[in-house]
Amino acid sequence: MASAKLGVGVIGCGTVGGGVVKLLVAEQAQLRRKTGVTVELRKAVDTDAAKRSATGLPPALLAEDANAVLADPEIGVVVEVIGGVNPARSLVEGALAAGKHVVTANKELVAKHGPELLALARKHGVTLHFEASSCGGIPVIHALGQSLAANRFETLLGIVNGTTNFILTKMHREGAEFAEVLAEAQRLGYAEADPTADVDGHDAAYKLAILAAMAFDSHFDYRDIHTEGIRNISARDIAIAKDYGYVVKLLAIGAAHADGRVELRVHPVLVPEEHPLAAVSDAFNAVFARGNYVGDVMLYGRGAGQLPTASAIVGDIIDLAMHQAQGGTSPRMNFGTQAKAVVPMGEVRTQYYLRLDVKDRPGVLAAIARIFGDCGVSISAVKQAAATTESVELVIFTHEVGEAAFQKAVAGIGKLDVVVGVRAIIRAHV
Amino acid sequence: MASAKLGVGVIGCGTVGGGVVKLLVAEQAQLRRKTGVTVELRKAVDTDAAKRSATGLPPALLAEDANAVLADPEIGVVVEVIGGVNPARSLVEGALAAGKHVVTANKELVAKHGPELLALARKHGVTLHFEASSCGGIPVIHALGQSLAANRFETLLGIVNGTTNFILTKMHREGAEFAEVLAEAQRLGYAEADPTADVDGHDAAYKLAILAAMAFDSHFDYRDIHTEGIRNISARDIAIAKDYGYVVKLLAIGAAHADGRVELRVHPVLVPEEHPLAAVSDAFNAVFARGNYVGDVMLYGRGAGQLPTASAIVGDIIDLAMHQAQGGTSPRMNFGTQAKAVVPMGEVRTQYYLRLDVKDRPGVLAAIARIFGDCGVSISAVKQAAATTESVELVIFTHEVGEAAFQKAVAGIGKLDVVVGVRAIIRAHV
Repeated sequence: MASAKLGVGVIGCGTVGGGVVKLLVAEQAQLRRKTGVTVELRKAVDTDAAKRSATGLPPALLAEDANAVLADPEIGVVVEVIGGVNPARSLVEGALAAGKHVVTANKELVAKHGPELLALARKHGVTLHFEASSCGGIPVIHALGQSLAANRFETLLGIVNGTTNFILTKMHREGAEFAEVLAEAQRLGYAEADPTADVDGHDAAYKLAILAAMAFDSHFDYRDIHTEGIRNISARDIAIAKDYGYVVKLLAIGAAHADGRVELRVHPVLVPEEHPLAAVSDAFNAVFARGNYVGDVMLYGRGAGQLPTASAIVGDIIDLAMHQAQGGTSPRMNFGTQAKAVVPMGEVRTQYYLRLDVKDRPGVLAAIARIFGDCGVSISAVKQAAATTESVELVIFTHEVGEAAFQKAVAGIGKLDVVVGVRAIIRAHV
Repeated sequence: MASAKLGVGVIGCGTVGGGVVKLLVAEQAQLRRKTGVTVELRKAVDTDAAKRSATGLPPALLAEDANAVLADPEIGVVVEVIGGVNPARSLVEGALAAGKHVVTANKELVAKHGPELLALARKHGVTLHFEASSCGGIPVIHALGQSLAANRFETLLGIVNGTTNFILTKMHREGAEFAEVLAEAQRLGYAEADPTADVDGHDAAYKLAILAAMAFDSHFDYRDIHTEGIRNISARDIAIAKDYGYVVKLLAIGAAHADGRVELRVHPVLVPEEHPLAAVSDAFNAVFARGNYVGDVMLYGRGAGQLPTASAIVGDIIDLAMHQAQGGTSPRMNFGTQAKAVVPMGEVRTQYYLRLDVKDRPGVLAAIARIFGDCGVSISAVKQAAATTESVELVIFTHEVGEAAFQKAVAGIGKLDVVVGVRAIIRAHV
């Protein structure tokens, strides 16, 4: 039987939880009109009294203990927005086991435990929705996992971390160095006090694991994703890239191989200015995918923030409410029905940008070119970019080559006594 | 009870129908894996024997009469891809009345009869899906109507017609005139022999009616959409716009007013180069929307073509199959739960680009400026763009002003004896 009411419990009253509370309170009439169901916020939980009271909810709707949500039979859907694996995992498991739908924005939890949690949801006849877990307000999970699911995706390229895109955009526009822009981003609230998860690419890797499950129809272990951050990107490299018509972006990349394996990697990339992703600036996110039927498709928007993330969470609640209105349940998203292997990084083929300082001496380029040649690396462009009294700066672009061969060549080049130092390596192919 | 099989009948074996057949045949294993249901193509129908045989299907799966689909109890979903209102409407009604789900790509049918057809679907406990009816492969219907449905949308800006975008892109890049680019587009198959529906904006108006229903939660009569096409856009105007940092695009525009009414209009617009829509080139489509929670969001991809459109249709079939796998039905999309009025075009406020030829005589600008002033139109820039022996070309940009006031001023200006002719009016605000 269709029920006219869907009770909601929100676990976590931080930024995102506060946004969900705000939307559910402000939009109750709209949600009823659109879904046919009264979506009723029954409880918001946080261990932090200050966060609870910041929601502005009456005390009767607030609780310190998540059991207040799990034990309420009138709560049909639990919104988990505390983040991290513990205690989120056990709370989500408890909610599913209690026959409650769960909507989560928790990328780490979904990336690490998505398959088990979805299996648990199926076992208990409920749904686990996670649209907000990747790219915030952009409805990319549903798009890849369902609307576009007729396609075999060839490539998936995502700017999925707003903090690093904000930093790289400012570095590009202002010629500033990473450390100073990071400090400013921290002041503005765009970067956390401990920026590791963002700037070292871990946040992007979790999101890629989730997006890749949707696009390539397979669960992947996020630990198999080769992950590099943006700490080593310098103003110098961004300036040179700009001269060559490139923008440096931290990309989350998935690429299907003909043998069924999939490349999954997160690292800075020189993106050509004319590529749609090059125009994705500031804290915006975008996912660009190429499907065998749909061709190129891109979804762009705010990947984080209180209200965009709450928009995605309430979108999932709308789906549950629409189903409840007619007595059915929402189809449970798969987290991939196949088991595909990740291509080892050494086998990945791409183009490279290499910057190094060398001694100003005849024969240097010949020595470098010889090592590249021995390793099968073919050079597409060389430029002497700047010179000091001690050294000359060389910028080298390669043709497409395997990562292992390139790294072997660079190791050999680094040992040449005419090479003062290898300053930067950035992959240059989308 | 969940059924393990979903029979599909395709009505229409033209370009899109042929694509749907191709996908269903090629992807049966993938669809079974992803949905848990065997999606079985049981019948493809066309009155044209050549189109039937072009599908490559065995004769047993082909029929001339759509009743072969409606009468087959094993067919659970009917794909309508014949286009136009007749006989599509009665076929869709017949399928819904027979308790079959319908998936349609028919923008005209959905724009004109969406509410009645959705009501009929509800009455018979089935679903009418129409993701492919607007913007082909881009999953914009689901995004606006469900994933992002928590939002109140402030604006919706769409490049929703690939033919006109292809033509305008070529005119922009090559400096060519409309007529010659149209002829080339017709040779390449990007424009039809009778290009009226595309170049005069009617196709875009149907799509805007559908998108606006999703975004603004109200059915609108497509006849209330002010619609202008691109026939009057000249190479000269595109070149001048380019100089000022604009790209000319045919936009489908929706904008919510504070009083609950909605602006709906299709016409060429000068789009600033830095706007995300300016980079949407060739036959690509994009929908840019601003929601009160999600902020700016854009969906980009192929809005037409055999396989992108088939991708969207099969995406709708996947939704139906996933629901059937668990014995439920898909929530029926609303076509707006409110009744909002369309703002009359005269009340719309925007900026304008005006190009006119005037006699090279003192006092001309004063005469023009006086009429603008009398009508409350304020000028932001004037440029004498070119001169011949007979006349001088004036380009005028206005500040934001109401359409009625601007048109009244232009009518007066056109009657001045120093004005040789009003050559172009293009709205210049997004």
